[in-house]
Order: sequence, then structure tokens, then C-alpha cells
Amino acid sequence: MRLDIAVLGGDGIGPEVVAQSLKCLRSVEETFGHTFRFKKALIGAEAIDKKGTPLPDETLKICKNSDAILFGAIGMPKFDGNPNAKVWPEQGLLKLRKELDLFANIRPVKVFPALIKQSPLNKKLIKDTDLVIYRELSGGIYYGNKSIDSGTNVATDTCSYSEEEISRITHLAFKAAKNRRKKVTLVDKANVLETSRLWRRVLNSIAQSYPEIELETLFIDNAAVQMILNPSQFDVILTDNMFGDILSDQGSVLAGSIGLLPSASVGTEHAMFEPIHGSYPDAKDKNIANPVAAILSAGMLLQHFKLNEEADALVAAVLKSFSKKIVTPDIMGSSKYGTNYVGDFIADNIM
Amino acid sequence: MRLDIAVLGGDGIGPEVVAQSLKCLRSVEETFGHTFRFKKALIGAEAIDKKGTPLPDETLKICKNSDAILFGAIGMPKFDGNPNAKVWPEQGLLKLRKELDLFANIRPVKVFPALIKQSPLNKKLIKDTDLVIYRELSGGIYYGNKSIDSGTNVATDTCSYSEEEISRITHLAFKAAKNRRKKVTLVDKANVLETSRLWRRVLNSIAQSYPEIELETLFIDNAAVQMILNPSQFDVILTDNMFGDILSDQGSVLAGSIGLLPSASVGTEHAMFEPIHGSYPDAKDKNIANPVAAILSAGMLLQHFKLNEEADALVAAVLKSFSKKIVTPDIMGSSKYGTNYVGDFIADNIM
Ligand SMILES: CC(C)[C@H](C(=O)O)[C@@H](O)C(=O)O
Ligand SMILES: CC(C)[C@H](C(=O)O)[C@@H](O)C(=O)O
Repeated sequence: MRLDIAVLGGDGIGPEVVAQSLKCLRSVEETFGHTFRFKKALIGAEAIDKKGTPLPDETLKICKNSDAILFGAIGMPKFDGNPNAKVWPEQGLLKLRKELDLFANIRPVKVFPALIKQSPLNKKLIKDTDLVIYRELSGGIYYGNKSIDSGTNVATDTCSYSEEEISRITHLAFKAAKNRRKKVTLVDKANVLETSRLWRRVLNSIAQSYPEIELETLFIDNAAVQMILNPSQFDVILTDNMFGDILSDQGSVLAGSIGLLPSASVGTEHAMFEPIHGSYPDAKDKNIANPVAAILSAGMLLQHFKLNEEADALVAAVLKSFSKKIVTPDIMGSSKYGTNYVGDFIADNIM
Repeated sequence: MRLDIAVLGGDGIGPEVVAQSLKCLRSVEETFGHTFRFKKALIGAEAIDKKGTPLPDETLKICKNSDAILFGAIGMPKFDGNPNAKVWPEQGLLKLRKELDLFANIRPVKVFPALIKQSPLNKKLIKDTDLVIYRELSGGIYYGNKSIDSGTNVATDTCSYSEEEISRITHLAFKAAKNRRKKVTLVDKANVLETSRLWRRVLNSIAQSYPEIELETLFIDNAAVQMILNPSQFDVILTDNMFGDILSDQGSVLAGSIGLLPSASVGTEHAMFEPIHGSYPDAKDKNIANPVAAILSAGMLLQHFKLNEEADALVAAVLKSFSKKIVTPDIMGSSKYGTNYVGDFIADNIM
């Protein structure tokens, strides 16, 4: 297969972890005889510094003309500190998601047996965790009207959802559940939010077409507790943009490190693959960042193009790194292996 | 001291846990020579069934004429299931908070040494947890305009904050930090939300008047991770209504059971005291509900009226119940003690 892949390293540790994904994709290319063409582009803080905007037109064009996008991470503290700034890195990612209509962010959370000791949670509670979060990614309060009235000093954010926006991701989630344990949990705040009540109505109606799937609802506050106390109850979790952001980061605690979890953001025409972790500027260029989340994101890319054998080989190499304890210090404090070494090991073991 | 206290048991386990708080307040009354007058009133599902509304005028009047309110819990699954309902129990609580202008919800999260074994989390990580969440309670997306357009089927919720709304709770949080470890962490999503950016601006400006307090900011997704991985870094957490709802329930996991955590909701004229847990209709009338959250909420009521010796005596009785293992089954699966027995034990040991 021939694939054009846009590579957006972004800020902080983004470029160095994405470099490890590239090694792994190169290895897949050689081992399985594919042709992947990579094209790097600027986004985030570096793009602001060099081009004055977090998403240059050139970058958007490269992404639109690619078959898939590999994304690193975004965000820089020098921008967070200033709530009066007119431009900041995250706007680049948000605009990219919107422009490419990436409406579904898919975040699997698994507890790897070889790493279970690393989890801060009770082993018995988490050992059977195997869930996937479907987070709506191109709507909700992230993209609603925002305003600040300089006279009254009242700020406003708007959260809107249309039936269509809810329906398209719901179908993806139900289809995913069909191939899994056949349960969808809608997480919302229907006792407070009108949008949540629309989500419930749309799901209740769509559920009729999937009689084999069990549909359950849970309030977000309770879900945040259940995610820690009883994660194995979940199969597919479906939720809106804001709740999905919170819940999926929280889910990363189960796996033992946020440096382990990949994600895919898909739309009807485009697909982007990114670790769920942030840019951790403090870890930049120290060769300590965990590359596994980025590498597994490349694995989701392979799956997306139905290169299942290839994806399996990549995941097998990752599991081998775990069982051989070739892991970064976030997983094992005493570990002496760095980002590059772990990346090389995994790439070399894709076979 | 003479206090008129409105008692709103509410739904599910609400009435039975509040009954235990009343025992404890009666015991405080006798031991310390006060006069507490209790007046029960309807709210929630029972009020809907009997009066057609979750907050009858009579209840609101009783609350307004009281010095304080003891609240149980609210919510019933028969209402959650129907996103087309016109009326549901939670509306009663939300309206009450608004009518009484209870703008600050104060939720302390402590890990009790005697119970640390019960936590599903790594003991080392959580043992020094001692934080308090200041959740804005009368604004934000809970109270903004809501609409559903029946033509387009687009639902909308609005999140607004004024400088004044942010400022009043911020002063409470900074004052609380002064008497604690002198750190305030603002949890928000300033990389996405305009309201968060206003929160940051207002806090940055108010922080000038509290030079001894360290102000830190954290994105909600990261905060949800930090709350589990490193809770002892927090002293006072300040956040908006929605994020506070999620974060404080999540915080309850640290303590070992959501049945342990109390809260106070205060305004300039009124104050209400309620456990942070929900109504758990499945546990209703089974004599298994943990009364400690409700009892400690009564303790916060005593503190609110500067009855510190009394509050200390109540807390001491609770700690005694822990060390004698007189606890409900949520804390120790093998426990044979019920709601009433634990309530009696604590009330009898207030001295
Ligand atoms: C960087 C930020 C805007 C982003 C989000 O909130 O969506 C991130 O937290 C994520 O989850 O991908
Ligand atoms: C019952 C519900 C409306 C309420 C809230 O969301 O505020 C509850 O979860 C709480 O935290 O007190």
C-alpha cells in the first residue's frame, strides 16, 4: 500500500515521540513492502513563532492532501500564563480538527498485564480493563460561540449539539460495540444540560437499530468515580467533547502512565493519529518521554487502513518491550532506557 | 445558641442518612446546651409525587426562614430514564441553590489514616491528602440559557460567568488558603473556554491582594489525572460549577468511599450542608447507607456557626467509629454494622 502521511510533531515532546512512530512505520514499510511518504509540517507554538499562526495554510493544505496525519502534542506554558493572548498553540489543533471534520476521537484504554504493577490503583479492580472511549471531537462547547463583553465583563461559552452531530458518532460507537462486548455507556449530565437530554433522545432512538447492544447511561460525576472504582464494567463509552477530554485523560491513570495511550481522530474523509498525552515541555529533549502512545497511535493508523497484520506486528513489538522491561522511566522509575532506545527496540522488533 | 434548621431529606438514602445527622445534632444540643429546632420539608421526587413540583413554595419559605439547611440527597432513576420529562428531582436542588444564592460549595477531601487501607489507590500516593475544593455553585453552564430548537433539533446550553461571580468565591478560596497551606489551584480549560480565560484574569488580579498565597493553574483534564496520581500537591482547589461537580466526586475515591465526604454550600445570607454523595435508590431502606458524609456535613454546620468545640467533638466521635471499625459495608465489606447503629454510636460518643 502507498500512503501519504502528514507529520505534525508540534510542541514539547511531540517531535521526539513522533520520530519514534516514524521509525516504526519505516520498519513496517520494509518488513511488509509498503510505501509510506512522510511530509512534515508546522503546528502550534513553533508555527506561531515562525509564521504568526498556530495552523499555517501550508500545514492545512498538506494535511488535506494526505491520506493520514500523525500528530505529536501541542501546548506551551508561555502561552497558558497569559489569558489576554490573542493567539495560542491549542487553537491550531482545534482548527485542524474542525477543518478536517474529525468528529470522532477514539481512545482505547487497556491495562497491559506486564505493566499492571505500575498502576497506582488496586490491581484487582483494574486488571480486566478493556474499554474504548468515543469522544465527539468537532462540536460542543469547544466550538460554540464565545464572547466577552468588555463593558459588563461577562464571558460566555456556548455548547450546542445537533441531532446529526450526535447521530454520526453514535453509529460509530454502536458499530464498535458490535465487535466487542456489546455495551455502550453514554456519559452525560442529563439532569442539568439540555444538550445531554438531546444526546439521550438520539441514542434511545438509534439503539432500536442495534437490538443486540445494551445501552446504559451514566452522569459524568458518577462516571469519573466508576472509571477508577470499577473500570471493567465499561466496554464502549460514548460522550461529548468536554466530558470526553476529562474522562479519557483520567482513564490513562488505569494504564499506569498517560504515556501509553494512543488515539485516532476520524471523520468521513480524513484521519489523524495522536497520543492522548500533552506536550510536557519540561521533558523536551531529555530523551525521557515515553514513545509508546505515539507508536500505538501509528498502530491505529495501520488498523485504519485495514493493515491488520502490520498493526498486530507493531503491537507485538510494543508488548515485547514491556515484557523485556525496555521502558522509559515514567513506567519504571529505575529504568535507564530513553525515548530513542525504546523506539529503536520496538521498530527493530516489528517482524 | 439557638438555631432553626430546615431538614430536607430528599430522595433515596437521603432521609435515612439525615436522620443520623439529626441524632448527632441532638447529642450536641444536650452535651453543650444549645437549642436546635428542626423543620422538615419536601424536595425532589417525593415533592413531585405529592405536590407536582420538586421545590414547593412551602419548602423554599421554610429554608429562607431558617438559619441553616440540612440536605440529604436527590435523584430517582425513574426520572433519569426519560429525557422528555418536563420536571425532575434535581431541578429542586438547583432552584434552591439559586434562590438562596448559595454560590460557594466547599468540599474538603481528607484521607483518614484509620481508613487508608480501604482506598483503591496506592497508599503512598494518597496518605497526605488534605485538600478542599471551592466549587462555584450558582452560575456557569448549570444556570445559563438552555434551548432546544424543535425544527432543527439543535440543543444549546450556555455557560456564562461575570467578574463579580468569580470574584466573590475567589475571595473565599484565598481566605481559606490563608489558614491552610497557602496555595490556590485554579482548575479550568483556558486553552479552550472564554469563561476560563476570564477566571484567570480575575484571579490574577485578586491574587495581588494576597501576596502570601501561591496561585497555580491547571487544565481540568490534567487535574483529573493529578487528583489520583498526586493529590497531596493540592491545598485549595478553586473551579467552576461543572468542573467542580466532576472533580469533587472523583476526589471522593481518595477517601475510600463517597459515603464519607461532606460539603457546605454558602452564600451571604444562607448556608446548606449536604453529603456529596447521591441518592442511591438501590440502597434505600436497607440500613446499609454510610451516614458519615451526612454527619460530617452537620459538623460543617457547627463550624459555620463557630461552634468549633462542638464540631471537634462530632469529628472526634466519627474518628472513634473508624478506629473501632464501627463502619458500614461500603468501608469494610465484612462489616455487620448498619446506618442506624453507626449513627447511634457516633451520636453517643459526642462528648
Ligand atoms: C490541547 C487541548 C486543546 C486538547 C483538548 O482539550 O481536546 C487535548 O487536551 C486533547 O485531549 O487532545
Ligand atoms: C444532583 C446534581 C444536580 C448535583 C450537581 O450536579 O450539582 C450533584 O451531582 C451535586 O454535586 O451536588
